[in-house]
Amino acid sequence: VLGIDPGLVATGYGLLGSASAGVAVLATGVITTTATLTLDARVQQVYDGVLAVLDRFEPASMVLEDLYAEYRFPRTALLMAHVRGVICLAARQRGVTLVAIAPGEVKRAVAGHGAASKAQVQQSVRRLLSLAALPAPSHVADALALAFTGYSRAGGRLAAAGVRP
Amino acid sequence: VLGIDPGLVATGYGLLGSASAGVAVLATGVITTTATLTLDARVQQVYDGVLAVLDRFEPASMVLEDLYAEYRFPRTALLMAHVRGVICLAARQRGVTLVAIAPGEVKRAVAGHGAASKAQVQQSVRRLLSLAALPAPSHVADALALAFTGYSRAGGRLAAAGVRP
Repeated sequence: VLGIDPGLVATGYGLLGSASAGVAVLATGVITTTATLTLDARVQQVYDGVLAVLDRFEPASMVLEDLYAEYRFPRTALLMAHVRGVICLAARQRGVTLVAIAPGEVKRAVAGHGAASKAQVQQSVRRLLSLAALPAPSHVADALALAFTGYSRAGGRLAAAGVRP
Repeated sequence: VLGIDPGLVATGYGLLGSASAGVAVLATGVITTTATLTLDARVQQVYDGVLAVLDRFEPASMVLEDLYAEYRFPRTALLMAHVRGVICLAARQRGVTLVAIAPGEVKRAVAGHGAASKAQVQQSVRRLLSLAALPAPSHVADALALAFTGYSRAGGRLAAAGVRP
C-alpha cells in the first residue's frame, strides 16, 4: 500500500507491505519541485516522480487523503489539487487502485481518536511501524499514516489499538 | 491559440487562428466525463481528450483562466483544479506554452469592462468572432473568450473596442 500526501512544493510518499512480523516500511521519500519553474513544469515533476515510484515498487493500491469541504488556505488547496490530479492520473495509467480516506479516519486508525494532533499522529506512526525515529518531514509522516490506514482497512494483521481491519 | 475552460463534468475548448479577415474560429468542442466513474478515471478522460486536441490542431499556446482567491463552491473548485492539473501536464508534455489570464482581463478584452456579465461576454464573443449564433455551452463561450484574449495579447490584429494587443 502506497500512501501519498500531495503538495506542490513537496509530495511525501510511504510504502507499506506485509512482513513476517506484521507490517513493514518498504520505502519512503519526498518528491520536490523547482519553485522557480512554472506550474505546468512543476506538476510534470510530481507526475514523473510518482510514475517512477509506481514503476519501481508496483504497489497494488494508493491511498490519498479524501478532499474535505474547507481548507484554511484556499490557494494552497487549489495548487495541491492540481498535484492530486496528476497523481490520480498516474495511478490510473498504471492500474493502481485509488483509495481516498477521510482525515478523521486516518487519525482514528493511527492515533485512536479523530481529533489527534499532528504530533500525536507522528508519534503513533513511529510506534506502530517500529521506526527508529519520528517520521519526517511531515509529508512522509502523513503518507505513512495514510498507508497504514489503507493497510488496516484492507485487512492487514495489525495489533494497534483502534484499528479495525 | 487554444482556450480551455476546465471542469470535471465538462471541459470546453476553442481554437482561434489568424485568417485573412482577422481571426477565425478553427475548432470548438466539449470534453465530457462519465459521472459514474471514479475521479482518477475522469481526469484521465479529460487528459486523453486534451491530448487528442493538442495532437490534432498543434496549437502554439494554451490559455487558461488564472486561479483566483475565492471560489463560491470550494469543492467544485478543487475538482476543477484536479482537471486543470492534468491539462497543464498535457500542455507541458506537448511543448505548448501555457498562459494564465485573470478573469477580469478576459472580460475587459472581450466585453470592454472587467465587470461584464456572462451573457455580455457571450454576446461580445459572438460579435468579435462573427459567429452565427451565441457560443454554447458556456464552457465553449468561456474558452473562446480566453483564446480571444490570449490572441489579442499576442498581438492579433483585432479591431475590437477595449482590446489592447
